[in-house]
Amino acid sequence: MKATIERATLLKSLGHVQSVVERRNTIPILSNVLIEAAADGTIRLMATDLDLQVVEQVQAQVETPGSTTISAHTLFDIARKLPEGSQVLLHAAEGKMLIQAGRARFNLSTLPRDDFPIIAEGELPTRFELPAETLKQIIDKTRFAISTEETRYYLNGIFFHVSDDPQPVLKAAATDGHRLARVTVARPDGAEGMPDIIVPRKCIAELRKLLDEVEGSVDIALSASKIRFGIGNAILTSKLIDGTFPDYSRVIPTGNDKLLKIDPRSFEEGVDRVATIATEKTRAVKMALDRDKITLSVTSPENGTAAEEVPGDYDGEGFEIGFNARYLLDILQQIEGDTVDLHLADQAAPTLIRESDTSPALYVLMPMRV
Amino acid sequence: MKATIERATLLKSLGHVQSVVERRNTIPILSNVLIEAAADGTIRLMATDLDLQVVEQVQAQVETPGSTTISAHTLFDIARKLPEGSQVLLHAAEGKMLIQAGRARFNLSTLPRDDFPIIAEGELPTRFELPAETLKQIIDKTRFAISTEETRYYLNGIFFHVSDDPQPVLKAAATDGHRLARVTVARPDGAEGMPDIIVPRKCIAELRKLLDEVEGSVDIALSASKIRFGIGNAILTSKLIDGTFPDYSRVIPTGNDKLLKIDPRSFEEGVDRVATIATEKTRAVKMALDRDKITLSVTSPENGTAAEEVPGDYDGEGFEIGFNARYLLDILQQIEGDTVDLHLADQAAPTLIRESDTSPALYVLMPMRV
Repeated sequence: MKATIERATLLKSLGHVQSVVERRNTIPILSNVLIEAAADGTIRLMATDLDLQVVEQVQAQVETPGSTTISAHTLFDIARKLPEGSQVLLHAAEGKMLIQAGRARFNLSTLPRDDFPIIAEGELPTRFELPAETLKQIIDKTRFAISTEETRYYLNGIFFHVSDDPQPVLKAAATDGHRLARVTVARPDGAEGMPDIIVPRKCIAELRKLLDEVEGSVDIALSASKIRFGIGNAILTSKLIDGTFPDYSRVIPTGNDKLLKIDPRSFEEGVDRVATIATEKTRAVKMALDRDKITLSVTSPENGTAAEEVPGDYDGEGFEIGFNARYLLDILQQIEGDTVDLHLADQAAPTLIRESDTSPALYVLMPMRV
Repeated sequence: MKATIERATLLKSLGHVQSVVERRNTIPILSNVLIEAAADGTIRLMATDLDLQVVEQVQAQVETPGSTTISAHTLFDIARKLPEGSQVLLHAAEGKMLIQAGRARFNLSTLPRDDFPIIAEGELPTRFELPAETLKQIIDKTRFAISTEETRYYLNGIFFHVSDDPQPVLKAAATDGHRLARVTVARPDGAEGMPDIIVPRKCIAELRKLLDEVEGSVDIALSASKIRFGIGNAILTSKLIDGTFPDYSRVIPTGNDKLLKIDPRSFEEGVDRVATIATEKTRAVKMALDRDKITLSVTSPENGTAAEEVPGDYDGEGFEIGFNARYLLDILQQIEGDTVDLHLADQAAPTLIRESDTSPALYVLMPMRV
């Protein structure tokens, strides 16, 4: 193959594909990016970690069509350092690739195109579109709750499922057993009857990065085992987590009768401040609720005590409840409005947190003993 | 003690003192900052690691003079999170300190002021001033060459000495055995007869941070074992490294007869580009000199080859020499002008690098076999 491509175009595309490639690989070809130059003046770049695959198509001047594979991180580092505005010649022949721009020449070894593993998509019967903005919101408001415990692999992603309760909706949920985040959106056309799926954390991370660069809609196609996202010039294909997500609806409290309405910003700042002295391990913050008076406090055997009063609307019975400060802050950071509702029951029961009863996102937080 | 201080003032001062405090300390009081409130409306903050001590004096409203010590990092973190523009009450009594601002209250345990170790300065007979700008330049152009090898403790700092060759000068030098950096400035009044000293790396780092916030001059006072810098409201006192800096002047080549004049920016970019594929361990770049043609190249068994031609003025005999790319880049990044002079001898001899024959900074770089 022989082709010339703008450095900026090459760099942007490599930026997308190289982050899929793991830094350390026991199988050498998994360190490589597949480069295919076609006679129609396009170059396809593809990278994979065997679970996740990204393909991007860009414009180029193709002199000789062909394909090869080359170290993704090395090519990315080279493209990053090439002069701005330069044209990059890619010329592969006899197990080598010449990369030339300006006065710089690189000769790198390649691996055969045929050894490059491609994820077989199989049939992807469910197909629908989602606005990029909606998909961003879904990810931003749930990903922080994804579990990192490898033994609970079925929690290492975002769970998507459709339901009719009573409107047709698409729900996305993530939990690590301590907190749960769920977003509900109108069910897009084509999503009816889709299987329940768990999209792995790494796919979510790459997808989120790509979403930053597009407007409009994302094409989604999926089966029970694979999902494909079409985002601008890029196609992201991922295996799904082969497991059963727990029936999370059981942990969403419905009978919590104590309602606290509070300004999420002053609440967040207060929690953050008193948590300064919290013990690194537990990060426990106590919240004492009294009529329109919320007192946040932390007692640390090493450091001392901290307390802050935050104004809030509360007319229930006075009681105390403890939370992990980090988890509470993660949730409060998702709240954009002027108030947040905390539906509480007692000091041992999960608390329901929402911006309002009609907001698409809902959070459940387990209390801690303090 | 009882005093009120502006949050911004407290935060800025704690920023200076807390970075002297090590994160982990076996002696508890070394984690603390000493706070002294005086009747004249000032607060002194002091921190130490037993080798380096920083004291800063700030304005406050002092109700009851007194002093105590409290965790430096915790107080810094609290000050950071307090509301902007708030007034902070510091009230120490009976082994505790109350910190109050807005609706937030912290009660932290203290340790007695008398247990706080103070570095005894002793006599500091040599006293002189240096413009902050000059001291910044000295540090910036030499610190990258400071050795990090703990066994060669006498290289773990910047060496300062005066000489009359033939003008009265103050010289600062640092080396790790692979490269040497030296800056020469006019000898300030009062520095005559000063002992040779080695200022440790950590003192240099803290000094450099403080210099960013001052203009005008820095007061320096020193003996053979201690040095004190007066920088604005802060006083930095450090023990000096108790060792003998090698006679570095012997490694500065004087007879290198091959002169390469080159644009430091295109040289730097070229080295950086070809070094992309260099083996992580050696980072060796080969430089082939030919009449007005400099070819940089790297050969990596894993990755392949890279080459770039950089224009330069050279009319000596053609030859090849190798350098550690990282070390060469460190030096080139210090060169601000349009050309840099490389005085070369042969492939085994140290190379002398200067902006020009009259520039205050001078660099020596050992070659590598390539």
